[in-house]
Amino acid sequence: MKALQELVVLYLTRVLAGPYASMMLADFGANVIKIETPDGGDDSRAFGPFAGTESIYFMSLNRNKRSMTLNLKSAEGKQLFMDMVKTADIVLENYRPGTMEKLGLGYETLQEINQGIIYAACSGFGHTGPYSSKPAYDVIVQGMGGVMSITGQEDGEPTRVGASIGDINAGLFTVIGILTALHHRTQTGKGQKVDVGMLDCQVAILENAIARYLASGKVPAPLGNRHPSITPFEPFKARDGYVIIAVGNDKLWEKFCNLIGRPELIDDERFATNPGRTENQRQLKVILDTVFPAKSVDEWLATLEGEGIPCGPLNTVDKVIEDPQIKAREMIVETVHSVAGAVKMAGVPIKLSLTPGAVEKPAPLLGQHTQEILQDMLGLTSEQIAEMKSKKVL
Amino acid sequence: MKALQELVVLYLTRVLAGPYASMMLADFGANVIKIETPDGGDDSRAFGPFAGTESIYFMSLNRNKRSMTLNLKSAEGKQLFMDMVKTADIVLENYRPGTMEKLGLGYETLQEINQGIIYAACSGFGHTGPYSSKPAYDVIVQGMGGVMSITGQEDGEPTRVGASIGDINAGLFTVIGILTALHHRTQTGKGQKVDVGMLDCQVAILENAIARYLASGKVPAPLGNRHPSITPFEPFKARDGYVIIAVGNDKLWEKFCNLIGRPELIDDERFATNPGRTENQRQLKVILDTVFPAKSVDEWLATLEGEGIPCGPLNTVDKVIEDPQIKAREMIVETVHSVAGAVKMAGVPIKLSLTPGAVEKPAPLLGQHTQEILQDMLGLTSEQIAEMKSKKVL
Repeated sequence: MKALQELVVLYLTRVLAGPYASMMLADFGANVIKIETPDGGDDSRAFGPFAGTESIYFMSLNRNKRSMTLNLKSAEGKQLFMDMVKTADIVLENYRPGTMEKLGLGYETLQEINQGIIYAACSGFGHTGPYSSKPAYDVIVQGMGGVMSITGQEDGEPTRVGASIGDINAGLFTVIGILTALHHRTQTGKGQKVDVGMLDCQVAILENAIARYLASGKVPAPLGNRHPSITPFEPFKARDGYVIIAVGNDKLWEKFCNLIGRPELIDDERFATNPGRTENQRQLKVILDTVFPAKSVDEWLATLEGEGIPCGPLNTVDKVIEDPQIKAREMIVETVHSVAGAVKMAGVPIKLSLTPGAVEKPAPLLGQHTQEILQDMLGLTSEQIAEMKSKKVL
Repeated sequence: MKALQELVVLYLTRVLAGPYASMMLADFGANVIKIETPDGGDDSRAFGPFAGTESIYFMSLNRNKRSMTLNLKSAEGKQLFMDMVKTADIVLENYRPGTMEKLGLGYETLQEINQGIIYAACSGFGHTGPYSSKPAYDVIVQGMGGVMSITGQEDGEPTRVGASIGDINAGLFTVIGILTALHHRTQTGKGQKVDVGMLDCQVAILENAIARYLASGKVPAPLGNRHPSITPFEPFKARDGYVIIAVGNDKLWEKFCNLIGRPELIDDERFATNPGRTENQRQLKVILDTVFPAKSVDEWLATLEGEGIPCGPLNTVDKVIEDPQIKAREMIVETVHSVAGAVKMAGVPIKLSLTPGAVEKPAPLLGQHTQEILQDMLGLTSEQIAEMKSKKVL
């Protein structure tokens, strides 16, 4: 049994926040129906990299879902969609605000059909406010929301986060909004609209940067890799990669100095206390930068970890995939796709004891489930479906 | 009415993932009871910056919650906690795995008291696997999970994301786990354990980096600020800051060249198509880097936006707080704290139409609500509470 298995989610296509959000629902068993345009479907089907003809990018975001084609610009297509909304639980879209209204399928219309429908809209700037109709991309909201201004090497350029957290965090907040609205609906029978803007989500993750600015009036700059108030608490370059160490107190510092073969640092007054080490971080880094290249990452980890110094490797993606903990937690999983064969992707990061999520089905081909969905949900016959296909409604 | 208002959440203290997760529940009306040790409480009460005696950092993560003190190491304290669990809905902790078991308050014990309890544990590496008992910090999981290896300037150092996404994303996934388990409980009456590891959550946000590596065998490096396959799609330095532009196709490129007063670039064969611009990105950047310093950010935005070129400022935190869209979306809110006075912080990024979340109460003082909580939940008298205080149970 899966936690969300009775829920029907109608998901209208667009990379990336929406697919990510609906993937999380699908991983826990929701019946996610990906509704795609008949002419090519989700744009991300054309995004590289590819395994043969199939986009690996698409496959990693659309596992566990079914796909049907539907032309929402045709009158018949609209009607089919509205018929499906009658028995659906959730509609999820990430178009620009106003698009669904133009199609005649805005929230006001859909909730007349189904009072309990939860309508989630994930857009660049949200459905209100002066920027509402502007286009947004991950890099634009990362920039506007402030995270780029605090990411980067010290005194360096503001830096985009390498993962698409502009999109992905919006997807996560959207899921939280949907499940919160779902709880309310279970209590009251009433659905509602969930409006999530990517920019808002970037502000919501700034956390202490806002507090630091408001307290000091100093505009936060790129932070580099070190901790602002604990030292040493950063990566150092070993022979074959980086080791991150987190020496949180003076007792650990003493241990650490002995372990790295530099016991004389213990008596160095500049570094005797954490405030001193933090104040003299650059001088300390110069010294430690001469120490770490002597051994490999694995050697350092064995040395430090055994004695209780918090530390870890700075893994590149190849190492992430092979990491024993990540393997043990099933965070890299494989699906077997009907065309592309075996494809690996990230697993489910939420481990539920009673109703665990799982990656069970590969991503669908475009329209792979059109027939079965329309038969099951609306009782259409093969003939009716074939006719609609010929008229390009599907 | 709030969506989660009947839910009782017992939240055991620790910066940052747990406070962030319980804050989201509290923003939607859950009755979040922050259970703190009598001797100082949540460590983050001592984290700067401060407004007078009060940590702004703490305040921004603990709004809408109540605080009670409880010594879980005392037998009476344990009993009180177990009595509270009887009528609670959710227990949330982010200790190292095994800590709650050592206290005699592990999931197995609590679910015997309350079959419906949802027990969420957010830890560094999760409750299973070889690293389970290791300590973790944000920078360590950002490093081990791969995001640092793909963040940074091109050919530059791997870079920590300036926001604590190691913690915060774990908090977000934990909320999703809790609400998913809650839906299942509503259907079946059965609670369960939600186990979220910070490292797993970092893997879950890597998205196309995993696909790119598996398809090509090439280990992804820091990406810089540009788009891997669309150009120009990156920040440029204007007179007083950076402007991010996103020129997604050849038609926009032509428009863009005219708008920046460099129409001759349209006919430059190197840049005529998007693949060409991407291949010759460095040469193009050299040219554009001479163009953008001529005007201010606001001037560029006015010029480009009016003609439909997707663009935005790269805001520093001071600008984020003053941004008209962010203000319109109420993404900076204020609470009035009984000691610290007015404090601004990030608002609620999920906009629900029927049961909106809100920031209504400032963060609690340590133990501010001990008496009212124990009276309301367990019917204790003032005398009983006073006695427990004198015995350091509270």
